[in-house]
Amino acid sequence: MDDSWPTSAAEALGGTGVDLHLDLPHGTPHGRRAALERALRDAVRGGRLAPGSRLPSSRRLAAETGLSRGTVKSAYDQLTAEGYLTARQGSGTVVADRPQGPSAPAPGRSAVPRAPRHDLRPGSPDVTSFPTSAWLRATRRVLSAAPSAAYDYGDPRGTAELRTALAGYLGRTRGVVAEPDRIVVVSGYVQGLSLLTGVLGGRGGRERGGPVVAMEDPGLPFHREVVRRAGGRVVPLPVDEWGAGACPREADAVVVTPAHQYPTGVTLHPARRHALTAWAREGGGLVVEDDYDGEFRYDRQPVGALQGTAPDQVVYLGTASKTLGPALRLGWMVLPPHLVAPVAEAKLYSDYHTGSVGQLALAELIADHAYDRHVRAARLRYRRRRDLLVARLTGEAPYPGVEVRGVAAGLHALLGLPQDGPDEAEVLRRAAALGLAVGALGEHWHAADDAVGPGPGRPQGLIVGYGTPGEGGYPAALDILTRVLGP
Amino acid sequence: MDDSWPTSAAEALGGTGVDLHLDLPHGTPHGRRAALERALRDAVRGGRLAPGSRLPSSRRLAAETGLSRGTVKSAYDQLTAEGYLTARQGSGTVVADRPQGPSAPAPGRSAVPRAPRHDLRPGSPDVTSFPTSAWLRATRRVLSAAPSAAYDYGDPRGTAELRTALAGYLGRTRGVVAEPDRIVVVSGYVQGLSLLTGVLGGRGGRERGGPVVAMEDPGLPFHREVVRRAGGRVVPLPVDEWGAGACPREADAVVVTPAHQYPTGVTLHPARRHALTAWAREGGGLVVEDDYDGEFRYDRQPVGALQGTAPDQVVYLGTASKTLGPALRLGWMVLPPHLVAPVAEAKLYSDYHTGSVGQLALAELIADHAYDRHVRAARLRYRRRRDLLVARLTGEAPYPGVEVRGVAAGLHALLGLPQDGPDEAEVLRRAAALGLAVGALGEHWHAADDAVGPGPGRPQGLIVGYGTPGEGGYPAALDILTRVLGP
Repeated sequence: MDDSWPTSAAEALGGTGVDLHLDLPHGTPHGRRAALERALRDAVRGGRLAPGSRLPSSRRLAAETGLSRGTVKSAYDQLTAEGYLTARQGSGTVVADRPQGPSAPAPGRSAVPRAPRHDLRPGSPDVTSFPTSAWLRATRRVLSAAPSAAYDYGDPRGTAELRTALAGYLGRTRGVVAEPDRIVVVSGYVQGLSLLTGVLGGRGGRERGGPVVAMEDPGLPFHREVVRRAGGRVVPLPVDEWGAGACPREADAVVVTPAHQYPTGVTLHPARRHALTAWAREGGGLVVEDDYDGEFRYDRQPVGALQGTAPDQVVYLGTASKTLGPALRLGWMVLPPHLVAPVAEAKLYSDYHTGSVGQLALAELIADHAYDRHVRAARLRYRRRRDLLVARLTGEAPYPGVEVRGVAAGLHALLGLPQDGPDEAEVLRRAAALGLAVGALGEHWHAADDAVGPGPGRPQGLIVGYGTPGEGGYPAALDILTRVLGP
Repeated sequence: MDDSWPTSAAEALGGTGVDLHLDLPHGTPHGRRAALERALRDAVRGGRLAPGSRLPSSRRLAAETGLSRGTVKSAYDQLTAEGYLTARQGSGTVVADRPQGPSAPAPGRSAVPRAPRHDLRPGSPDVTSFPTSAWLRATRRVLSAAPSAAYDYGDPRGTAELRTALAGYLGRTRGVVAEPDRIVVVSGYVQGLSLLTGVLGGRGGRERGGPVVAMEDPGLPFHREVVRRAGGRVVPLPVDEWGAGACPREADAVVVTPAHQYPTGVTLHPARRHALTAWAREGGGLVVEDDYDGEFRYDRQPVGALQGTAPDQVVYLGTASKTLGPALRLGWMVLPPHLVAPVAEAKLYSDYHTGSVGQLALAELIADHAYDRHVRAARLRYRRRRDLLVARLTGEAPYPGVEVRGVAAGLHALLGLPQDGPDEAEVLRRAAALGLAVGALGEHWHAADDAVGPGPGRPQGLIVGYGTPGEGGYPAALDILTRVLGP
């Protein structure tokens, strides 16, 4: 849900000069062997040991350095394995021939943008709660139990284990009609959306320049760009207080977030749900359901997935990004039967399949209910955070004109700004000055893609993500937020 | 390297009938709680417990079933978390409202193709040697040491840890010019090739219908299809005993396997290496180096990567698929600087980034040399297998006219068939009759894509992959092979 990425620091690799007399440190045998290897490697790379030059025998080098002969031999073996040295019958160890070419890497650039002191931007879950022990336990079980075939190329649709576990989980928790045969495991939502757009394009789409995909307005600009890059033409699907509105006639597909619209937080109204699936049934279009927040509903019973009411018209897309962590890159598509083969084929030709170890670990977590327990605990934590946010903004000292919306579910809220107050840009500036980063509604309008900016009269609002700050930092971030919104 | 995939068995999900009187098994409390949960879930799903119906109090159900009240309460909690039940203030636990829709999944189809008794098809490494303990150890270290930010969205180029480890490893073992800033981590070779084709297309390619990509003939048909699906136009690059020949003028890129051509096993001749990079320098074309077998060279010093001699013209592509296992879906591109940003962007919009836990585990393995040790041990094992193959086919009872080629490296050999003997199809039939699967040269010619088949006078040959059969099965597979080739 985040369309920026950090330019992470690149470490410089420049070799350090090492005397060929090999000034080795005292210390553990392992440490000294490593130092010897490093010194030899640097000498070869730096050209001080030319290709073909003969190295001292292990016996002699051992005597000269005070290392054991075994240590020297191990170091020689390692560098031979690495291709620096070569053992020649009868002539001992010599420096290997290596291809010439520029070899001194340039020092890396370091350009890490400064992180904000208080981060209430939406898009990321609370990764401090990633269940490292449970994940490790599941991985251990996978690695000790999986047959060796599990390490070979796998099924592009995903492992049978995960598809079976997901079928059960999605059926019982989200009301998804999800036999394993309808599921294709993907590496997150972006990939699912991209593959699907490609498949729609390959099937003719609208012929005239790719399939037409209607996407919520406002919605995430990053996802619009994913569709465009995969060959789709994006048209707006206006969102009001009932959620996504009427589907454009010409659309081949509509992409919606029924459980908790992003960014407005609206839940799709039953009448609109019906209208969407009727549109798909009548015109043969496809509904794509992005269930990114489906697990985190606080105030009412979970709203079942739209897919459950029209499994042959709706593609259900879910991920472990919000429940566990985005870094796993694990997602799933539940497809109408006629789309399973084309999507699996698109997956095959784009990256063969998603890594199996992670898939199997997730299947373990789901099968033994650790996943349910984790989701339940996360839901409680997020609910408490949500409650705190609502209490701070609507409590004894309400902020005139600021409306807190979309808080029945998920990890973000929309704060509607008063018409007569400062606009989004002004509020963001105030926040930044106090070290607070927060999202703005403005960048989510389709018009924003053309840098036109929100049209006149469009509502102004902040998007507050409450998943991110650590437990310690959250109240402080809210303090700043209330100062920014205050008079 | 394998373009088929198993249609794996899909498990049927059909619920089993459970009496509402809940006939629970004796056994551990955990087992009985699980049985209670299952029974309730099935009852709700099957409609025997209708939405809104009230469940007995935990006290009463405990008394009726002989379970402890705590066990019953836990089961209720679990099903409430899953959305089946809901706890209503004052009216106890009731069955939740759930969306209507078809909910009984069809029984899964099971269509697993029968595996051959003896498998000498190329494309897979010896996955029985996957280093499960080392991988688990590395994963444990990652999960206990990584900061929580490691579980959030990451850099589309890959983690700094893995790019740094790869830079060192590829520099010292393959002579690759590989600062971390030049590297983009991908989910295997297929993805690297696909992204690159897309980037060439986006840069205008040849305008007229996508970039022109010259690919070795013979070569892997699967990879040609990857390029086509990503919008490329494939033209043949003929291979002779020196490897890939002259680059077509009109090509935007050429894809080659310099270390060990697939499927002929030829090593690219120095003169040809020079011609390739000269072509790229003069015409501005790009060379894509598929180093799939670079680590497994047996008879001579490793042949350094082509990239090391022309790092601004060559894209180096390597993976952990042959060294560890294809299921990890871990690969890397080392790019000319001007291509790093476009490739990282293409990666971002196609799947954001490759899963971080696997990346970090591989970085650990490389940093502590466990990766080197594993590769060295694998090289010894494969070399012994290669030696056995050569001994069986060229030893005391040679097979007239059968030439064993391409065995200086890698996991496969080309067996040239005599002009006057039975043709490929006939030999494959004989092999299949004895339960042996083996590859054929014929399907690798570009003409084969059009189902024209190999042209007249084209050499005939078998591709024997010796990575796959388990240590126990390999000699038996060779027995069958010699029978098939014998008179």
